[in-house]
Amino acid sequence: MNATERLTELFMRFPGIGPKQAKRFVYYLLREHSHFKEQLISALEELKFTGRQCDVCFRYFGDKSAVQDATCSICKDETRNRKTVMIIEKELDLDAIEKTASYAGIYFILGGLIPPLTEKPSELIRIRELVAMLHQKISNNDIEEIIFALPVTDNGDVTREYVEKTVKQIVGIGKVKLSTLARGLSSGLELEYVDKNTFKNAFEHRG
Amino acid sequence: MNATERLTELFMRFPGIGPKQAKRFVYYLLREHSHFKEQLISALEELKFTGRQCDVCFRYFGDKSAVQDATCSICKDETRNRKTVMIIEKELDLDAIEKTASYAGIYFILGGLIPPLTEKPSELIRIRELVAMLHQKISNNDIEEIIFALPVTDNGDVTREYVEKTVKQIVGIGKVKLSTLARGLSSGLELEYVDKNTFKNAFEHRG
Amino acid sequence: MNATERLTELFMRFPGIGPKQAKRFVYYLLREHSHFKEQLISALEELKFTGRQCDVCFRYFGDKSAVQDATCSICKDETRNRKTVMIIEKELDLDAIEKTASYAGIYFILGGLIPPLTEKPSELIRIRELVAMLHQKISNNDIEEIIFALPVTDNGDVTREYVEKTVKQIVGIGKVKLSTLARGLSSGLELEYVDKNTFKNAFEHRG
Amino acid sequence: MNATERLTELFMRFPGIGPKQAKRFVYYLLREHSHFKEQLISALEELKFTGRQCDVCFRYFGDKSAVQDATCSICKDETRNRKTVMIIEKELDLDAIEKTASYAGIYFILGGLIPPLTEKPSELIRIRELVAMLHQKISNNDIEEIIFALPVTDNGDVTREYVEKTVKQIVGIGKVKLSTLARGLSSGLELEYVDKNTFKNAFEHRG
Repeated sequence: MNATERLTELFMRFPGIGPKQAKRFVYYLLREHSHFKEQLISALEELKFTGRQCDVCFRYFGDKSAVQDATCSICKDETRNRKTVMIIEKELDLDAIEKTASYAGIYFILGGLIPPLTEKPSELIRIRELVAMLHQKISNNDIEEIIFALPVTDNGDVTREYVEKTVKQIVGIGKVKLSTLARGLSSGLELEYVDKNTFKNAFEHRG
Repeated sequence: MNATERLTELFMRFPGIGPKQAKRFVYYLLREHSHFKEQLISALEELKFTGRQCDVCFRYFGDKSAVQDATCSICKDETRNRKTVMIIEKELDLDAIEKTASYAGIYFILGGLIPPLTEKPSELIRIRELVAMLHQKISNNDIEEIIFALPVTDNGDVTREYVEKTVKQIVGIGKVKLSTLARGLSSGLELEYVDKNTFKNAFEHRG
Repeated sequence: MNATERLTELFMRFPGIGPKQAKRFVYYLLREHSHFKEQLISALEELKFTGRQCDVCFRYFGDKSAVQDATCSICKDETRNRKTVMIIEKELDLDAIEKTASYAGIYFILGGLIPPLTEKPSELIRIRELVAMLHQKISNNDIEEIIFALPVTDNGDVTREYVEKTVKQIVGIGKVKLSTLARGLSSGLELEYVDKNTFKNAFEHRG
Repeated sequence: MNATERLTELFMRFPGIGPKQAKRFVYYLLREHSHFKEQLISALEELKFTGRQCDVCFRYFGDKSAVQDATCSICKDETRNRKTVMIIEKELDLDAIEKTASYAGIYFILGGLIPPLTEKPSELIRIRELVAMLHQKISNNDIEEIIFALPVTDNGDVTREYVEKTVKQIVGIGKVKLSTLARGLSSGLELEYVDKNTFKNAFEHRG
């Protein structure tokens, strides 16, 4: 297998990339000046060394500054409220939420969701890491609210229930506020297309 | 212009139907047995005589029973709570909400929405009819809550503000509860795709 | 079942119309002035009486003029070359071809296609009617070319083979030219998306 | 700008990749074992050295074997008929045609198309390279047919006319056959959707 074939196969493992698109990438690289390939190689090399997981929120990140310590820029940011932790599924959710510029706490990334009837849910998400982090925060008196920001799907609900149950055993009643993002009509929704659950949520929490 | 051409032009006025689809309808009718055409004509004749607007909620309906009095089956239904009125834009919204089987009050159909900066908003929606209906309900002590169920769009928000302002002048403070369907994450939403307004609403109303 | 429900069900039998769109049609009709409903009823009435099938090409049409004789305007048009017959599947194909303004002969509409391995193909298309028409044209010395204009699909190919075999037995070799629309690259095609059969046809018939 | 940001920007230059997809690639790489990144770097390195342009057909390719001489595997393949040259726009067209396994000659890649009214068309395509290649083939008596396989679009037609005119001055009349892939109905086409040009081509070349 030659370089174009190998590269095509590697690109096919990228999320959402089929054989045709992978080939298109390779042709693009073949046509581009070698300077571009060098930039790509150099960024990949750097990623290999600097790319790491934050030891607080467990997101993957690639800051050069992070070579020394393994905490990401959000978790290190002293202007953020570290007593509020938002529990999310994945990095892309964090990006979308950061883009709204409406949240100033920190995050914890579960790294997955639990489908209904899963036998060993603890293997699918970072529950041990969350427990350890909360124990430390509690002993430091460093936590006030845990916010669930999981998708409004069956998997999201199963995950929230499982994590909530675990978290409640640690934080004690009343000490730490547990909350969930409100459900209702999202922006742009026309009532004509409303589904049963969304309407029920929006109706019950009308105000 | 012959019958096929005239029929094609009439079908082109149906919502969402272009020339090709209109022609397809005509060919379909030409091929179908004349019995089908007769059924269609008979249903249209009946609609012409029975089709009317409810004098309470102002929706268009076509119940045969309605020939006598001009109130629709929902507004006449004694098992429904007539002290709760949900203000909506159009008939299709009513259908979608009825399908959720989660609401037992009655409706009022505005018949439109008000875009921002509209000079004469009262011409775009049934505001006079709403005012008259509310006056009557208040004098009968027949109203407890008005729920806004308008789309989560600029037009929906402008409409709600305008109607709310008008309604408040009639109902008096504290006598009638004014509410709005909750905003937040709707069913199926992945946080990855959340927009600024939806996140802000969901975050502020977390609970 | 009342008029709106019956009308919704009738519209759901129109090609490509689901329950939601059918309901939208009914609401549209309920809102429209009764004059529109009357126009619709009148066009449908006329279609019931004037809508008929051409006794030459077998297409359905609805010309008022056709009340007297049952031949469509294309087949009656003396400026067209009646010695050339294009065999097509359905009325919409005729419309599309007429729109190109590139064909001046007449048509014969099979009214269907034959899938592979069909046991009684003669029941799916108007083969008897085609045979009768050709017999008459031959005895009148009124035919020079038969052009197959069927879709480039398996069903189209099976249909052409079956009709061609039948036609050949009638017209005799050499007397009537049998032809098929050329296959190759159609307008707008990018080679990047070419499929095996299209390329083979385009390559073999390059010129 | 750190490695993740730089990598995101580089991926955004890949064909068809927006900022969200580029970020998704970077997160994927961050999560993947460093072995995958190493494979990617190694394939890119190899491409940098082996990736080159064929000195006959001018396509970009990345065969390791090509380090020594700069002719691609198709042009070197002695089982192919080098007296037939198919003129195409780009590498992806070549891939699609090779996949049909219906062509056994060689290719020449123009590397672009000429839009109507272009002032200096020779700067948009490899016309000088084509002329040089044809001169050599003619003096070696090594060419019999030139096949145009360009998209059926305005740009494709302008390009063919320009190249054909240039080529005719070189090859002399009658010595080398110039042909173009046939135009007509492509596989899967329903007559209902036929456009004017496709029908005209299919009708004029019926057979």
